[in-house]
Amino acid sequence: MGRRSWTVIGVGGVGGYYGSRLALAGFDMHWVARGDAEHLRREGLVVTSPRGDAHLTDLAVTNSGDPLPDTDVVVVATKTINNAGIIPWLAECLAGRSATLVILQNGFDVEQPFVEALRGPAPDVVVVGGMSFICSARTSPGVVAHFDYERVTLGTTDPGPRGDAAVAAVVEDLSSAGVPTEPLADLVEGRWRKLVWNIPFNGLSVVLDATTAEMVSDPDTRAMVRSLMEEVVAASEGTGHPVEKSFIEEMFDSTERMAPYAPSMKLDYEARRPLELEAIYAAPVRAAEAAGVEMPRTTALWQQLAFLDRRNRNAD
Amino acid sequence: MGRRSWTVIGVGGVGGYYGSRLALAGFDMHWVARGDAEHLRREGLVVTSPRGDAHLTDLAVTNSGDPLPDTDVVVVATKTINNAGIIPWLAECLAGRSATLVILQNGFDVEQPFVEALRGPAPDVVVVGGMSFICSARTSPGVVAHFDYERVTLGTTDPGPRGDAAVAAVVEDLSSAGVPTEPLADLVEGRWRKLVWNIPFNGLSVVLDATTAEMVSDPDTRAMVRSLMEEVVAASEGTGHPVEKSFIEEMFDSTERMAPYAPSMKLDYEARRPLELEAIYAAPVRAAEAAGVEMPRTTALWQQLAFLDRRNRNAD
Repeated sequence: MGRRSWTVIGVGGVGGYYGSRLALAGFDMHWVARGDAEHLRREGLVVTSPRGDAHLTDLAVTNSGDPLPDTDVVVVATKTINNAGIIPWLAECLAGRSATLVILQNGFDVEQPFVEALRGPAPDVVVVGGMSFICSARTSPGVVAHFDYERVTLGTTDPGPRGDAAVAAVVEDLSSAGVPTEPLADLVEGRWRKLVWNIPFNGLSVVLDATTAEMVSDPDTRAMVRSLMEEVVAASEGTGHPVEKSFIEEMFDSTERMAPYAPSMKLDYEARRPLELEAIYAAPVRAAEAAGVEMPRTTALWQQLAFLDRRNRNAD
Repeated sequence: MGRRSWTVIGVGGVGGYYGSRLALAGFDMHWVARGDAEHLRREGLVVTSPRGDAHLTDLAVTNSGDPLPDTDVVVVATKTINNAGIIPWLAECLAGRSATLVILQNGFDVEQPFVEALRGPAPDVVVVGGMSFICSARTSPGVVAHFDYERVTLGTTDPGPRGDAAVAAVVEDLSSAGVPTEPLADLVEGRWRKLVWNIPFNGLSVVLDATTAEMVSDPDTRAMVRSLMEEVVAASEGTGHPVEKSFIEEMFDSTERMAPYAPSMKLDYEARRPLELEAIYAAPVRAAEAAGVEMPRTTALWQQLAFLDRRNRNAD
């Protein structure tokens, strides 16, 4: 069997980086872009990385909203903010096809609306949830800067052999492209695990205009980050997908080893793009609440962010 | 009996305003100032107010740290930040005297260190706690701008006839100067009551760079303000000095009637002065904790402020 074909929707810090690794490893790559489509066709994609820089040219680029090429794997690597528009389009494009759809996005329960929309029209599409642990950003059209980390974890929304096989095949593809990738026994636990980092650092970076390095070195923000992480761990326990408490120390350790970093939400805020508040704050708070677990600090941070986001996008 | 003599320590938005009302009513006023002392002696004190502007000249101004004139009443109207320096100086100046000492400051339990320091050297000084509900600020040396409100509440730290008489006399003096003033049956409850407003609005105005009007009109900040107020009310109940829940609605109503306003902590932050975090956040959180009541949102806000305050004062 030859290398599988992939479509990457969203050529940003996440999609651009992992797509470039797959392309360099010889996978048949297709790209779906919105504003950058014409630039990518003309100039290609530049990826700068401590693993080596790359310039990919002659890209097969489709405009967002146009029919999708028929590939083995389709990766959604856009912001969750756009999901309401992407889901019906994907359901139409993938109708009757067989494929693995990887939702490589931040947040809680982000796969479920895809699963529901595809169930009827595309019963042979298997939905896989993915998380990327990466410091990277699209810095200008067709340019992705990768700074640090790149690990991916993947779990199925379709328990059973079919879902497991889909996850295993994606793990194999990414691993063969040199990306450290691990299958998750429990996708929901994996989502909580990622939120242990995202909930404190994404939000506080915006509210306090601070880097990760500042937040872990100041005693008060460090204590607050810990309290937020403890809320997420308690929520994971309450919902029956427990993350072990020692994971908090691991997150502090890996954050301390990072270069001072502006999380994606901070970059979104600075660019006056909408913040991923539904996926990163609202959905987990709701899930915890349904399980009888309150997240008062997380809720307060989310409320602050909702105010700042609204004002930021209303500003001239 | 002639009008009593008063000393006002701290000629800012609070001390400057109330002192001016007393002076206009004919009280014998003395003023203690730090940086503005020379300016006040030379140029006097200008107070702009919807109640009428005033320019007081020929002021009796003492430098902070110098011996205090012997007056019937001494008002501490400085920021709590300076209390550690003020208390030993006051204990020395007031030793052996008879006077009423009014602690007209924000925060929780601010009177106690004064009471303890004076008990030995100045047993005839009666300490009264006061709260001002006022929108005012010192806008430049010798200039105080009063925008709205001016009510004062006062309660004793010395239960019994002596304390009650001291409160009654101060209420009478301020009332005779046209300042609406009320005695409190329970000073601690009064302190909690003021914190219902101060804890949300002072802190959030700094963290979110927002006015009171913005905070009450945005649905998310309004919900967060309400949650913070509910924590303060729960803490007041837990410590045995309950504020009624309906007070929250009163605070929203009066905030909506205010002109858009930057609370004192916001002005301190903009001027890179230290924030009153000990009095407004740390002390009430500790008191609640000792009574078994957690204040997670208040604690989180305090931690954010501690970070911002530290960075703000370390900045060039």
